[in-house]
Amino acid sequence: MNNMKIAVYPGSFDPVTCGHMDVIERAAGVFDKVIVAVLNNSEKNATFSADERVEMLERATVELKNVETRAFSGLLVEFVREVGASVIVKGLRAMTDFEQEFQQAHINKRMEPTCDTFFLPTKQMHSFLSSSVVREIARYNGDLTGLVPDEVQEKVIDKLSKI
Amino acid sequence: MNNMKIAVYPGSFDPVTCGHMDVIERAAGVFDKVIVAVLNNSEKNATFSADERVEMLERATVELKNVETRAFSGLLVEFVREVGASVIVKGLRAMTDFEQEFQQAHINKRMEPTCDTFFLPTKQMHSFLSSSVVREIARYNGDLTGLVPDEVQEKVIDKLSKI
Amino acid sequence: MNNMKIAVYPGSFDPVTCGHMDVIERAAGVFDKVIVAVLNNSEKNATFSADERVEMLERATVELKNVETRAFSGLLVEFVREVGASVIVKGLRAMTDFEQEFQQAHINKRMEPTCDTFFLPTKQMHSFLSSSVVREIARYNGDLTGLVPDEVQEKVIDKLSKI
Amino acid sequence: MNNMKIAVYPGSFDPVTCGHMDVIERAAGVFDKVIVAVLNNSEKNATFSADERVEMLERATVELKNVETRAFSGLLVEFVREVGASVIVKGLRAMTDFEQEFQQAHINKRMEPTCDTFFLPTKQMHSFLSSSVVREIARYNGDLTGLVPDEVQEKVIDKLSKI
Amino acid sequence: MNNMKIAVYPGSFDPVTCGHMDVIERAAGVFDKVIVAVLNNSEKNATFSADERVEMLERATVELKNVETRAFSGLLVEFVREVGASVIVKGLRAMTDFEQEFQQAHINKRMEPTCDTFFLPTKQMHSFLSSSVVREIARYNGDLTGLVPDEVQEKVIDKLSKI
Amino acid sequence: MNNMKIAVYPGSFDPVTCGHMDVIERAAGVFDKVIVAVLNNSEKNATFSADERVEMLERATVELKNVETRAFSGLLVEFVREVGASVIVKGLRAMTDFEQEFQQAHINKRMEPTCDTFFLPTKQMHSFLSSSVVREIARYNGDLTGLVPDEVQEKVIDKLSKI
Repeated sequence: MNNMKIAVYPGSFDPVTCGHMDVIERAAGVFDKVIVAVLNNSEKNATFSADERVEMLERATVELKNVETRAFSGLLVEFVREVGASVIVKGLRAMTDFEQEFQQAHINKRMEPTCDTFFLPTKQMHSFLSSSVVREIARYNGDLTGLVPDEVQEKVIDKLSKI
Repeated sequence: MNNMKIAVYPGSFDPVTCGHMDVIERAAGVFDKVIVAVLNNSEKNATFSADERVEMLERATVELKNVETRAFSGLLVEFVREVGASVIVKGLRAMTDFEQEFQQAHINKRMEPTCDTFFLPTKQMHSFLSSSVVREIARYNGDLTGLVPDEVQEKVIDKLSKI
Repeated sequence: MNNMKIAVYPGSFDPVTCGHMDVIERAAGVFDKVIVAVLNNSEKNATFSADERVEMLERATVELKNVETRAFSGLLVEFVREVGASVIVKGLRAMTDFEQEFQQAHINKRMEPTCDTFFLPTKQMHSFLSSSVVREIARYNGDLTGLVPDEVQEKVIDKLSKI
Repeated sequence: MNNMKIAVYPGSFDPVTCGHMDVIERAAGVFDKVIVAVLNNSEKNATFSADERVEMLERATVELKNVETRAFSGLLVEFVREVGASVIVKGLRAMTDFEQEFQQAHINKRMEPTCDTFFLPTKQMHSFLSSSVVREIARYNGDLTGLVPDEVQEKVIDKLSKI
Repeated sequence: MNNMKIAVYPGSFDPVTCGHMDVIERAAGVFDKVIVAVLNNSEKNATFSADERVEMLERATVELKNVETRAFSGLLVEFVREVGASVIVKGLRAMTDFEQEFQQAHINKRMEPTCDTFFLPTKQMHSFLSSSVVREIARYNGDLTGLVPDEVQEKVIDKLSKI
Repeated sequence: MNNMKIAVYPGSFDPVTCGHMDVIERAAGVFDKVIVAVLNNSEKNATFSADERVEMLERATVELKNVETRAFSGLLVEFVREVGASVIVKGLRAMTDFEQEFQQAHINKRMEPTCDTFFLPTKQMHSFLSSSVVREIARYNGDLTGLVPDEVQEKVIDKLSKI
């Protein structure tokens, strides 16, 4: 179908949080297809490997039929072109995210004028939530209920309590 | 078609600016239908009447086949329900817009959980542009080229130079 | 007891919200006495009279034994001196509150060096909540559950649905 | 005494500044006991050892009878529980501190619901002051008067002018 | 001299504060001439008349030989052209001033491309200071020492204590 | 001439962008001399050597007769004293730059009271532009037209496409 609207939701997802899931679910309700794009950046030390991060997302999104997860490296706009997407979706938690994300949106628009970035405000209950917060709590064996999807909770604790 | 994605783009549009047009055009490229919703708020003194504002938008969007303009009063979420929209679109120019818009998005989500607000960053060249800036420049007979759509420029100058 | 720590929590409370209640409860847990100070500012049009606002607060705080509510007019620091308080407590919902509140805290400190302002972050679920949000929702007969204390919900709807 | 209010004031204090001292003094005027908690984080390279930082704080707070200084590692909320505190005190210098501190306050509240974070605005004259500013000025043999407590000035210059 | 650099420092100055004086003094040290431009805006209710505001500024700047004060109405850029200035100077106290001032600077640049706006950070000790703060303190007979220039203190208290 | 106003414009310029050029040109129109000061900071890994950065700036500013470029290391205020400047000029792109720059301006003022920092808002079309954005785009062989001065475009692409 040539009018199918595909959205890309890029991130590190190290690991996926309930805040990410909320963005994915809402984007899946609006666009025909949502591709969760896991940045595989060799320079940046991720706690989980790209394969682990993709696998956790796949488990967490198994019920969402129009969502698929893929790893990518290199420039986001090239990945966007490759998959035929016309929209980049980003969650905004708070004002500090704002300027950096806007700058990136302007750069991406310059490099790929056909692709726009849409921002979704995260739910208030997730406004403090980030992958690094999850990692910090998991490292001290804190409870992750409501912070990461149930499907991945054990995996996250397992990995981080050993560090 | 039951899967048609309708977006509402609400505002005062007093008058429509090139910044508004940019949001309308980009939303029209992503959603099946965009309804520009002109707030007819009797408490707030608008410079242009709701009819004038709708008429200016209609002239400016005449080429965009999936865009229609309507006035509304009362609660935005009721208008959204009435027209069967699933998305509210807002432009974000700068950080000062941010918290107020996020607050409003959270209130709207509470009152109508099926409707999400998507934010679009405005083009950098429009980041200083607002209806009140247009009114201020027009009042002193400044040049409005590039600030309001060509179709409405004369009307705006005509009205404001007389105040 | 000469070392009793009294905190003043000033505001308009037009009407009291669950966000205010959260600040009151937490302050009551830390200070020996909390005086909720309802600003009776004749210049600013309040929706509820000072008497109504005090009465709603008294009903909502009836279980909190070390909390009392009083109306005041004039300068906050004079009220603070009068009641023998050493602390002003304020809730901070978001960054936009920040600079104005800090400025006011610095002015108050200049006028009454013995009195410090302590800021309490509001719960995330209350970060969008304000008296004006409550009034807006009530005006359209929206549901106020979880937004204002149960004890005052009827009173607020009663008053605002008639406007 | 079971109602004694203990506040913990955590930080790196690398080294203690006059801005820190201002927060300590004001907290000591309000709470029964203030424990200055020096974060001993092996991952983060501090310029001064935890012992040196504790010792400088002890010298600077020797006149404040209800203030004590202790090093801690691990999770702040565990230290807070261990010492029986019910309040965490933080200074806020400027808006950039705000969101990060609020996020941390929300995380701590989640992990230890009985403990609240209170924020104190720093004096205007200290609003540019931080440990890293002190280190930068000391490294170039700048004058530290009014930036660090007199008791520790020599020690700071001694250490940093050699780097 | 055709290369003389003239700066305009616009504002309401209702009344002049020590924060304004600090900007004037620093601008006078850098530019050949500084014209303090008192906005005489009939729509906005000033506490002091334009004549009173000019007269207070003249008394406060009598020692600064390259500073002159003039009232203006209408568009700032027209005044700037009229006096042959190439620079607009503004003080910035805090982040909340920032976006509004930047927007205005961009509008002015559009209307008068030869004129740039330079921003000066105010001294930290003046960062809470504004004309409205002065008016509020004076209304309650607070001490204005260090808040307004000595030369105008009596005049300000005289006027405001009667309101 | 003893009244000559010299401004220093400090930065890393790694590499110079069109946003930097805009600040240089506007400062050169206001001050008698502008010295572009290239920070040669051995601790921070620059992509281009200090010599390369100076050379690119010299080529880009060859038409601006009152602009000269010099490398410096150590404390900015010492360089300012050495060259007899009375003004530091900085560009401000967005709010996130603001607090850090203000803090630095206050520190510099403390260390060298005769030298003030003036901030210039960058053109809107450059508000997303930074050296790191340029490096990112160049690394992926993106088009740098309008982002860096024409004179240095080839050099930048040459260097970065090899990394």
